[in-house]
Amino acid sequence: MNTILIGIAGGTGSGKTTLTRQLKEHFGPRVTVIGHDSYYRAQPGTTYEYRVAQNYDHPDAFETDLLVQHLQELKAGRPVECPVYSFSDYDRTDETVTVSPSAVIIVEGVLIFQDPALRDMLDIRIFVETDADVRILRRALRDVEERGRTLESVVQQYLTTVKPMHEQFVEPTRKHADLVVLEGGHNRVALDMIVQRIENHLNQP
Amino acid sequence: MNTILIGIAGGTGSGKTTLTRQLKEHFGPRVTVIGHDSYYRAQPGTTYEYRVAQNYDHPDAFETDLLVQHLQELKAGRPVECPVYSFSDYDRTDETVTVSPSAVIIVEGVLIFQDPALRDMLDIRIFVETDADVRILRRALRDVEERGRTLESVVQQYLTTVKPMHEQFVEPTRKHADLVVLEGGHNRVALDMIVQRIENHLNQP
Repeated sequence: MNTILIGIAGGTGSGKTTLTRQLKEHFGPRVTVIGHDSYYRAQPGTTYEYRVAQNYDHPDAFETDLLVQHLQELKAGRPVECPVYSFSDYDRTDETVTVSPSAVIIVEGVLIFQDPALRDMLDIRIFVETDADVRILRRALRDVEERGRTLESVVQQYLTTVKPMHEQFVEPTRKHADLVVLEGGHNRVALDMIVQRIENHLNQP
Repeated sequence: MNTILIGIAGGTGSGKTTLTRQLKEHFGPRVTVIGHDSYYRAQPGTTYEYRVAQNYDHPDAFETDLLVQHLQELKAGRPVECPVYSFSDYDRTDETVTVSPSAVIIVEGVLIFQDPALRDMLDIRIFVETDADVRILRRALRDVEERGRTLESVVQQYLTTVKPMHEQFVEPTRKHADLVVLEGGHNRVALDMIVQRIENHLNQP
């Protein structure tokens, strides 16, 4: 199987998850989605208070070499056991999800263009770009409504880690994108173009 | 004929002409290319010195309503007489070029996303983005080597009109793009994706 890896990066709240979901909804089981988020490091023997206080927007928070290894396995046609992360517990769970190889794998995450080994594996690199004010509003809504956090904790985390890490590690990796999609979730023209690119790959003999 | 209009914008020296040329080379007569540059206003009764001193980076330097009218004609299946501009004389010539309708029309220019009527006609809006320092170096080489200008005049024009007009009129229109291509001329992945999008349009029944 000739597998292509499509990376979808972008800052928090940029709309990369929406774009990824739209592609997944369009193609169903024909494409596999893997989130860098799932590869947040396990933190055995730590307290909840310790884990809450860590910087989850720094590249070191991720076990990226495990993700790279899993992508290599998938490209070679072998299934992998993808870790499952708990956002409420700030830790990796004991569960895994079996991910099967497929012709199109979408890798999604804020920092996926930051690690050279991961970046170089990606055949198509898409960066979803949205203004910072719109992004933080979306993140605040998501974290408060879906992840049960307080607005105060969202603001605190944004100013102390998310924003500085974005400027230091995320924004500079935009340069490595092949394509920048403006306002991912609502950009029909870009979505259509990516859909056609994937469709052509899936339809090739 | 179901015609799609593809707009390729970007600052001076961004690589938009290279991207446009690559698409033209790939598709040949199946796509038509129209430059906004060709629609620089005629300046009857003016001296060369007067014309040299004008601001060619302001939207008013273009007869954009004529371009819009021509695109409407082409979409309706009728040929148009496209004006021919002389960069050495800083004026429109008496010649015209007959442009025939086709299924894909590429409109290229620095300011094509600035005029709402023109922008709204474009089915796919691509902005080619390149760092400002790289762009001015490319422009300097082109203007000195191909257009017989002195480096001093290039610098003078860049600082007095090109750069301020870019910041005022070009950069803000990036927001209207569906897709931003980084380093147009050398970006194979983006080029392939645009080629496939056009190919699919041309192959549709």
